[in-house]
Amino acid sequence: MLTLHYAPFSRAERIHWLLEELSLPYELNKMEFSPADLKSEEHRKRHPLGRVPVLEDGDVSIFESGAIVEYIIARYTDGDLKPATDSPLFPEFLQWFHYCEGMVMPPINTIVVHTLLLPEDRRDPVVLGQAQRLLTKALQPVEQAIEGRQYLLGDFSAVDIMLGHSIVKSKMTGSLEGMDNLLAYTERLKERPAFLETVIFE
Amino acid sequence: MLTLHYAPFSRAERIHWLLEELSLPYELNKMEFSPADLKSEEHRKRHPLGRVPVLEDGDVSIFESGAIVEYIIARYTDGDLKPATDSPLFPEFLQWFHYCEGMVMPPINTIVVHTLLLPEDRRDPVVLGQAQRLLTKALQPVEQAIEGRQYLLGDFSAVDIMLGHSIVKSKMTGSLEGMDNLLAYTERLKERPAFLETVIFE
Repeated sequence: MLTLHYAPFSRAERIHWLLEELSLPYELNKMEFSPADLKSEEHRKRHPLGRVPVLEDGDVSIFESGAIVEYIIARYTDGDLKPATDSPLFPEFLQWFHYCEGMVMPPINTIVVHTLLLPEDRRDPVVLGQAQRLLTKALQPVEQAIEGRQYLLGDFSAVDIMLGHSIVKSKMTGSLEGMDNLLAYTERLKERPAFLETVIFE
Repeated sequence: MLTLHYAPFSRAERIHWLLEELSLPYELNKMEFSPADLKSEEHRKRHPLGRVPVLEDGDVSIFESGAIVEYIIARYTDGDLKPATDSPLFPEFLQWFHYCEGMVMPPINTIVVHTLLLPEDRRDPVVLGQAQRLLTKALQPVEQAIEGRQYLLGDFSAVDIMLGHSIVKSKMTGSLEGMDNLLAYTERLKERPAFLETVIFE
């Protein structure tokens, strides 16, 4: 049995969404997004820094959402949600899959820290502004890539679970202004029952 | 022919290192790590934000170092440098491969910005200190994981190209103090000719 160690608002939503998309059986260990749960001795045995998601699967325990998505696709599907190695979409899949944590999530993290997590007197408007401008720049190539497509690669794929999730979170920070393709895309995601059930989008 | 668009000190070193490890033929477009080269109109056609690495392979153009490593392994080897899907090391491979950009590189980026890239009067010692503490925390689990191993997974793998590269860069920022396993590991990497030829390590 797969066990997903989870907290809402976090990257653990991605794995929850993926498990629902694939209709895989799993148990959900639903924690609060709080130090009491995530920094507990029990959870630090699963992830030394107290992060989520963590997936357990028999003897296997694995963290990092991108790693877990790849693990589930490789071990529990016949290559669903990922183009084959010889597909023309294979390089683009890899690029946007890694672009999520490489380019989009770092400024989102900074924005969340300086609008929600830090006490008001420690929030820095200069740092916040830099992160907002970087996020806008990082999203522009995605806005162009999705032009004329239903999902990020055309058909729904694991890139939507990774980069799509961070685009939804970008919208929640107000960073999609003027990006009509990405705004329409976040609306289309709501037509997917697995997304609606698992991802906080407003 | 593979063409690697490259600048020293950057993540492009990873791809240069990988190409040398695999003895693949390639051309190197060696740019300076400077706005004049990286933000040029020519390079922005390859990467809209002017980043490296970018790999070109016939009609394919792909960015993000993690994506390029996966692309080269999938299309140009018989699965070299990556455990098979049913290997007990497969989950750990994925985890540390993604941990590189997910946990280790964000604080390294902040440290580089606040020690090298920003003019001195705009460097923030509070932000720098936070990043240094986070980097130390993020490296501790790797220090434990490599205990008794030659490389990050035991045998040399693409995890050494990704996470190993960021450990070498962590050493350059002075962040490996007291981590004897990782310090010994960075010394062992210097025994690899491909590493010595491609990665700036001091």
